[in-house]
Amino acid sequence: MQKPLILVTNDDGISAPGILFLSSVAKQFGDVAVIAPDKPQSGMGHAITINSTLRIQKTNYHNALLEYSCTGTPVDCVKMAVNKLLPRKADLVLSGINHGSNSSINVIYSGTMSAAIEGALESAPSIGFSLCDYSIDADFSQAKAIIEKIISESLKNKMPKGVCLNVNIPKLKSDEIKGIKVCRQARANWVEEFEERFDPYGRAYYWLTGKFVNFEPESNDTDEWALSNGYVSVVPTQSDLTSYQNLETIKSYLL
Amino acid sequence: MQKPLILVTNDDGISAPGILFLSSVAKQFGDVAVIAPDKPQSGMGHAITINSTLRIQKTNYHNALLEYSCTGTPVDCVKMAVNKLLPRKADLVLSGINHGSNSSINVIYSGTMSAAIEGALESAPSIGFSLCDYSIDADFSQAKAIIEKIISESLKNKMPKGVCLNVNIPKLKSDEIKGIKVCRQARANWVEEFEERFDPYGRAYYWLTGKFVNFEPESNDTDEWALSNGYVSVVPTQSDLTSYQNLETIKSYLL
Repeated sequence: MQKPLILVTNDDGISAPGILFLSSVAKQFGDVAVIAPDKPQSGMGHAITINSTLRIQKTNYHNALLEYSCTGTPVDCVKMAVNKLLPRKADLVLSGINHGSNSSINVIYSGTMSAAIEGALESAPSIGFSLCDYSIDADFSQAKAIIEKIISESLKNKMPKGVCLNVNIPKLKSDEIKGIKVCRQARANWVEEFEERFDPYGRAYYWLTGKFVNFEPESNDTDEWALSNGYVSVVPTQSDLTSYQNLETIKSYLL
Repeated sequence: MQKPLILVTNDDGISAPGILFLSSVAKQFGDVAVIAPDKPQSGMGHAITINSTLRIQKTNYHNALLEYSCTGTPVDCVKMAVNKLLPRKADLVLSGINHGSNSSINVIYSGTMSAAIEGALESAPSIGFSLCDYSIDADFSQAKAIIEKIISESLKNKMPKGVCLNVNIPKLKSDEIKGIKVCRQARANWVEEFEERFDPYGRAYYWLTGKFVNFEPESNDTDEWALSNGYVSVVPTQSDLTSYQNLETIKSYLL
């Protein structure tokens, strides 16, 4: 029987420690193909490249069945993999491990999660992994057992079509992680500030900075609650953005 | 009494015909501030600029209360407007009019709709408008009465918090448009192909192309159905991507 084909991608770039760790774990479960951005693509959301062209290059960071860097976004990488580079249909798409959280509202800005959402659109079970630690020395191995469990169960069980998992891992030692919580995306937002600086020619430029605000810190069924309380959060995530509960309200005044 | 403050943005760039038309319509309803990308940003999805800096420049295409082009993405423009440039809280955010459809799955790739979603996150009622006509000579005026109605009703009625409207307008004459349908996002996908070309040095590069496939052409409650049948489609759109109906399935095998 053919081994499962596992596509691995991310948004931090093909040589980031997080994706190196993820591809090494993935190899236990099947043939691994890595197609990932050639440079950091954090915050790229669901961007695709339509006004310019893409290039790909064979690389050798992962010792994988197949490995290419791509000049495009994380979503471009998934499209390029699925439609051009993979030798057969992927059985699983893994994205990450992201260096930093993609919980709550971060899911819509995240290149890591957009790659997973795109994977699910292409009809393969998909999982985005993120570690809540922005350090370059982040220790991805602490959650190895849980990552293995989530991959293994996702291969064994039929994941709902079009849905991917948003997995966030707290910055804790393995014996401090209490387990997994399947939960919903917390209502939260970023309160931004733009830091103004001046270039040597006196012209202003801006850095986007911000502070994360959880609007419902008391709710115990959210990803933010799970992470704050020592659990790995898993949010089933979809690409249907329809606000079903507001269809009637909008009808009441627009029709 | 102070007039409503209306922020207008888009993804085709600050001087595109679609945004010029939208700002001119918006002026009937209040003070208009235009903060939009300085170049085309189609397909940018919910991308934000975090690895580089932003610049802004005063422009004068719209004869508005306030007008700046920004080097960033559509979402950057909304953040920059709300947190830095607007003199007071916006009462309404309008994005578009996009040159081309943002119905169905296009919502997740669309810079136009991501700007509207970001507007809603910043707690202002937000509407993204798109015309299903990619031509540079597209006639935005055919839907003027309907656009005015949607803006007027959205100002008069309290839109649900965090929700924006995804409005798509069929390419029809005004007397051919049958009215408005409030509907859900159709399940659909793009089947991509990458067109391979070679540069003068013999190196391959790729253009992303694709074909839109509606998975449920028979359903009559979707935006695709509305557009195919001569209606303007309005989908209430949210940023909570949780797949609530699959929480229990995922729990059943992960916990």
